[in-house]
Amino acid sequence: MGVIISVVGAGIIGLTTALTLADRGHAVTVHDPDPVSGATYFAGGMLAPTAEVVYKQDPLFPLMKASASYYPDLIALTSKYSDKPTGYRTDGTLVVARDVADKTHLAELREYQEQHGMEVETLTTRQARKYESALSPAIAGAVRIAGDHQVQPRLFTQALIDACHNAGVTFTHEKIDDIDRLEADQVVVANGLGARDLVSYLDLRPVYGDVLQLRVPEHQYPLLDHVVRGFVEDRPVYLIPREDRTLTIGATTREDGRAEAQAQGVFQLLRDAIEIAPAIEECDFLEAAAGARPGTPDDLPYLGRIDERTVVSTGYFRHGILLAGLGARCGAEVVEKQAPSIDLSACDPRRHE
Amino acid sequence: MGVIISVVGAGIIGLTTALTLADRGHAVTVHDPDPVSGATYFAGGMLAPTAEVVYKQDPLFPLMKASASYYPDLIALTSKYSDKPTGYRTDGTLVVARDVADKTHLAELREYQEQHGMEVETLTTRQARKYESALSPAIAGAVRIAGDHQVQPRLFTQALIDACHNAGVTFTHEKIDDIDRLEADQVVVANGLGARDLVSYLDLRPVYGDVLQLRVPEHQYPLLDHVVRGFVEDRPVYLIPREDRTLTIGATTREDGRAEAQAQGVFQLLRDAIEIAPAIEECDFLEAAAGARPGTPDDLPYLGRIDERTVVSTGYFRHGILLAGLGARCGAEVVEKQAPSIDLSACDPRRHE
Repeated sequence: MGVIISVVGAGIIGLTTALTLADRGHAVTVHDPDPVSGATYFAGGMLAPTAEVVYKQDPLFPLMKASASYYPDLIALTSKYSDKPTGYRTDGTLVVARDVADKTHLAELREYQEQHGMEVETLTTRQARKYESALSPAIAGAVRIAGDHQVQPRLFTQALIDACHNAGVTFTHEKIDDIDRLEADQVVVANGLGARDLVSYLDLRPVYGDVLQLRVPEHQYPLLDHVVRGFVEDRPVYLIPREDRTLTIGATTREDGRAEAQAQGVFQLLRDAIEIAPAIEECDFLEAAAGARPGTPDDLPYLGRIDERTVVSTGYFRHGILLAGLGARCGAEVVEKQAPSIDLSACDPRRHE
Repeated sequence: MGVIISVVGAGIIGLTTALTLADRGHAVTVHDPDPVSGATYFAGGMLAPTAEVVYKQDPLFPLMKASASYYPDLIALTSKYSDKPTGYRTDGTLVVARDVADKTHLAELREYQEQHGMEVETLTTRQARKYESALSPAIAGAVRIAGDHQVQPRLFTQALIDACHNAGVTFTHEKIDDIDRLEADQVVVANGLGARDLVSYLDLRPVYGDVLQLRVPEHQYPLLDHVVRGFVEDRPVYLIPREDRTLTIGATTREDGRAEAQAQGVFQLLRDAIEIAPAIEECDFLEAAAGARPGTPDDLPYLGRIDERTVVSTGYFRHGILLAGLGARCGAEVVEKQAPSIDLSACDPRRHE
C-alpha cells in the first residue's frame, strides 16, 4: 500500500523523486511556490561524469557514474507518463584544449579514465575537426567521450511536470516554512538552498554561475553536434547544442553573492567560447543569467534520512541534473526504507551538524 | 485657433512634436499601437554634436548643433507639463583614445572643432583620469567637451507621455495603414521605419545596433561622471552613466537584418568598454538588445511637407534623440506653415523619390 508523501521543492530533484514515488504507488504532493525557478532553470544539463572528473572530486565520481547509468531508466519513466520532449541526447562529449598548457587537463583526464577502465578517444586537432568542423584550427587537441548524455533542463522539467500530473502527483503552490505542519507520512526536503530554512544544520551556500543562451542562425545549424567542454588558459567553458537551435554556454563559478549575471562572466564566456568555436560570433545573443547552485562543504549532496518521517535530498551543487538519476532512485528507496542501490554513507545529511 | 492634428508614431520624434504642437494650442492625437518600442527604446541618449563629428557627416553637423541648442527649451517644455525625471544631464563628454593609432580620431576632432570655433580641452591620460578615475591607465589620451548633454531615453519618453497627457494630447493604440483615413487637418508621419508603409518613396532601411545595459555595484557608484566615448582599435564605443546606477554601453552598427543582439556585438562592446574602463567587469549584466534605427541614403532625416495636409519627420538614424530638439521645433513650424528656425532644404522628404 502506498503512503502519503510530501515533496518540498519542484526543481529537478523534487520532480524526479516525486515521479519515481508516484510510479511506485504512493500518494505524492509537491509543494513549491514557483516550480523550476532555481538552479535547475539555469543548468546546462550535461550528463557527463567522465568529463566532470577534471575537477578531481574523487568521492563524487562513483555517484556520478551510477547516476548516469540510471538515467536511461529515468528518461523511460518520464516517457511512460508524458510524450513531451526531454532534450535527451547521446551524442557524447568532446573535451578540447585551447593551447599546449591546457592539454594538461586532457592528460589528467586520460590518466583518470585509464585508472577506471573507461574508454575515451584521444584526438588530434585534425581529427577533432572531423567530428566538429566548427572547432578552431588553433586548438591544441581533444578527447572524445562517446558515452556522455545530456538533457535540456527547461524541457526536461516541463516533461517531468506533465508526467507527474499524469502519474497522479498533486501540486500546491504554498511555501513550506515548517515541515512539521505537513500532513504526510513521509516528507522529502528537496528545495535546494531553501532547505536551510527547514533543516537548520544543513551547511548549504549559494554558488553562482553565469550562463548564456545563444541561438544558432538557421544557415549554420547545427553548429555543433556534441557537447564541447573547453579549457582556455585554464578556464573551463562548455558549449551545449540543443535541437531548438539554441546553444548554452556556461558556466562561471563564483561565491560573491551577486545574483545577476556579471559583465566579467559574460565577457569571459563569450571570449573563451569564440576561442574554441569562432562561428559562435555569428549567433544571436538571447540571454545572460546566473543560477545559484546549492553547495556543501565537501561538494557531496545531502541525501539520506534524518528522522522517521523526513528524508533530505539537496546540496547537489553543479551536478544536480546529472545526479537526478541517483537522487530520484535512491531518494525513493530511502523513503521506502529499503537499502539504496548505491552506498550513500558519504551523503549523510547530518555530517556537518 | 488650433487645428486638428494627427501624429503617427510615439517614439521620441512623435512625442516631442505632439507636445510642441499641443503647447501651441492645437488639438493633437498620437497614434501608435506600441509607444516607445522602436529605435527610441534602445537609444543611448547622448546629445553630443561635437563628439559625433568624428563620423564626418558635414551636412548633418549644423542640424545637430542647432538641435542641441534647442534642447534646454525642449526639457523646459517637458517640465512645464510633467514633473517626471528626464535623465537630462550636462556633465559633458570625454572622448578617449585607447592607443596611439586611435589618437588620430582625437586629432581629427580637434581640427574640426577649431574650424568651427568650438571649445574642447585636450587632456593627457593623467588629466583624463583626474576627471574619471575609472579610466584605464593604458589609454593614450582624451579630449573633454564640456557642453555635451544627455537624456535617458526610456525616462525621457515616459516624462514626454505624461507631459502630452497633461497638455491635452489624445493617444490611440490603432495601427495607421492609410493616412488618408485620418480625420485631421494636418498629419505628421513620425513612425520611424514604419513610415515606409505610409509614404512609398521614403528610402528608409533598418540599421541595427547592439546595446548593453549594465548596473554599477553600489560601492562603485558613480563609476563614471561623464559620458565617455572611446575608440579602441578604430572601433567606437560609448559608455553612458545614469542616475539609476545603470550604465548603457553602445553601439555596434550593422545592416545584416538580424533583429536580436549578436554574440559578436555583445563580446566586442564588453571587450572595448573594459579596455577603456576595467571596472566595468564588476557590473551586473542586465540586458543585451538591438535597436533598428531608420537610416536614409545620405544619413540626413526626412523632415518637411509633402502635401497640403502631410508633414514627414523620420529617418533620424543614429541621431534621433539629439535631433528631437530640431524635429519637434521645426516639425511644428512646418505644420504651422511658418518658416523653420533652420534651413531644412537638405531634409526634403522627396529627395530620393
